[in-house]
Amino acid sequence: MKINKINYRTVWCSQDGWSVNIIDQNRLPNDFEVVKLSSLEQVIKAINTKIGTGASVSIVLAVYGMALAMKEDPSNESVRSAAKVLINNCSGIKNITNVISSLSAMIASVPCDIRQSLAYKKAKETADLDVDINSAIGDNGLNLIINAHNNIGQKRPINLLTHGNAGWLTTVDWGTVLSTVYKSHNVGIPINVWITETIKGDRASILTSWELEQEGISHSIIDDNLSGYMMQSGLVDICIIRADQMSAEGDVVNNIGTYVKALAAKDNSIPFYFALPSSSIDWTLSASLSLAHINERDKTERLGIAEYINNSNRSNILTADLLKDKYFGEVTPASLITGLITEKGYTSASAHGLAALFPDRAPLVSFG
Amino acid sequence: MKINKINYRTVWCSQDGWSVNIIDQNRLPNDFEVVKLSSLEQVIKAINTKIGTGASVSIVLAVYGMALAMKEDPSNESVRSAAKVLINNCSGIKNITNVISSLSAMIASVPCDIRQSLAYKKAKETADLDVDINSAIGDNGLNLIINAHNNIGQKRPINLLTHGNAGWLTTVDWGTVLSTVYKSHNVGIPINVWITETIKGDRASILTSWELEQEGISHSIIDDNLSGYMMQSGLVDICIIRADQMSAEGDVVNNIGTYVKALAAKDNSIPFYFALPSSSIDWTLSASLSLAHINERDKTERLGIAEYINNSNRSNILTADLLKDKYFGEVTPASLITGLITEKGYTSASAHGLAALFPDRAPLVSFG
Repeated sequence: MKINKINYRTVWCSQDGWSVNIIDQNRLPNDFEVVKLSSLEQVIKAINTKIGTGASVSIVLAVYGMALAMKEDPSNESVRSAAKVLINNCSGIKNITNVISSLSAMIASVPCDIRQSLAYKKAKETADLDVDINSAIGDNGLNLIINAHNNIGQKRPINLLTHGNAGWLTTVDWGTVLSTVYKSHNVGIPINVWITETIKGDRASILTSWELEQEGISHSIIDDNLSGYMMQSGLVDICIIRADQMSAEGDVVNNIGTYVKALAAKDNSIPFYFALPSSSIDWTLSASLSLAHINERDKTERLGIAEYINNSNRSNILTADLLKDKYFGEVTPASLITGLITEKGYTSASAHGLAALFPDRAPLVSFG
Repeated sequence: MKINKINYRTVWCSQDGWSVNIIDQNRLPNDFEVVKLSSLEQVIKAINTKIGTGASVSIVLAVYGMALAMKEDPSNESVRSAAKVLINNCSGIKNITNVISSLSAMIASVPCDIRQSLAYKKAKETADLDVDINSAIGDNGLNLIINAHNNIGQKRPINLLTHGNAGWLTTVDWGTVLSTVYKSHNVGIPINVWITETIKGDRASILTSWELEQEGISHSIIDDNLSGYMMQSGLVDICIIRADQMSAEGDVVNNIGTYVKALAAKDNSIPFYFALPSSSIDWTLSASLSLAHINERDKTERLGIAEYINNSNRSNILTADLLKDKYFGEVTPASLITGLITEKGYTSASAHGLAALFPDRAPLVSFG
């Protein structure tokens, strides 16, 4: 998407054909700076200092890290040590072990002289796949926004409310929720975005706002607590939210504050969607595992909260931020969700809906 | 209630028998200071600089202002000018015109030599009435807290969630919501209070927290957005909230964020009460006037928001605070409210419930 009217991805191979460029998100929105990474060590540092955000950006970086290691030294020993260094130093990235293990096995299976080109090819493919997924999420959400715009008689811009950071900067391109916004804007639907702000000046709302400004899309940051009032007052036509994780039954774990927004949307008959890549679905949380089971998983984390609470005093202000390492996530039950927007299409938030969209996964879901 | 283990009211006649003491709330919680007011002018300045908060404290101050004027000069001209000065300079106080007009008429109707003593007597009565009302609210809420504590088998402290400033400092003594907490604490019910914080460091949460600390009652400030998660997680047993205004049908207008908490409480079968003096009931909003009508009243204010929204840009962050002068208030519909705690007793949030509790008002309510 655009920064200063020029199209960018968050991470890309530079014109020299080997070094890796990444937008330094820690400096946004004040300074726009692209950092050039020339070694595996620099890649790992970039991942750990969160120059980029979002799991897919980190995975793409890690694969480029392997490519840089192969450029330096394509030996078997180098493949092994690069994989080990990545897995050991980037444990915060979901699936890092699986991705790097299979990548290094593939690279090790070809002759040394083509390992570098194979690694760069895989890195490019990983990035392109992420772009395709997020572009498809946008395409699949577009119809819902068109419908909502028709429902208000196309008389004014449609007001979309989102919560949390779901812009293109959290992916290689397009984003998840904002992908639906960009696609709508691109086909000429007038749209205004309400960006909720949980903690004054939080990065999520500031970066979302900055992105939309760069694309020339109307938006305002609103106090989180205003959401209910704005829904009551007809100022919200549609809600599209990101998701951290989803069960095979369509229950969503996400940022604090999502659940009450879903309640308010339902109470005011406002459609409430999640936009997410299918990689966020945890198929092990299947029909036999209820919402209660999702909660069950975080027993220790919630005991952590209880403990914190008992020791609390006036100076210990209990915020979502403070609970970051201690809490599992707030659940928005499927019953409150109008539908799910994924790269494979749109479906209902239910075991049946998800099984229909992802037939390969269907056996894991039991139909009552 | 207690400050540094000594009992206080927020406003009282000092030991000299004529000057008026008031706790300077602008300096709390860092400094506890009592300001002595010796003239009508000082009283008006105190009201306008918000040394005290809450309508009843301001009314008591205004009546003391009249008493100070009578001490200075009990002539007819003095009665007239004092009333005029108070009405003209304290227009922000609800009912100020009615209260001061009837007070000055009463004073003018007695001989000059007893006007001062009558005015002081009325001021003391006004303060005592407020104390009685808030004490009764606490007594009437106590049973609900006892029931909720029984419902959890008395196995642990009961967790009460409140929102907005409803402590004794907002009244002459006891407060509204916190009156129910103090009464419970006084009879030995172990209680913990969750104090929601809408904007980081807001005065409401800080003063509520400070009050509870002075009384030795367990509490924590929580991020507003955490409320839904905490209700889902069994960390909230009962909600008691203040109200700005209530219709004769039990719909409540209150701080932003109240409505979504009511939704979450209902979704998790947690009782959700409002504690309010009957003076907060607007009987003109009767059965024939629906919730929609309450909204109707603020058309201009909400147009104000819309206008603001259209002109918004990234630096204009739309918060409840910014909307202060432009928005009417968020409505929590009666259907979400478990019940109402008033000085006259407990009742359901409905026209029937309110009419039963306030029979003098019954004619204004039409029964379908």
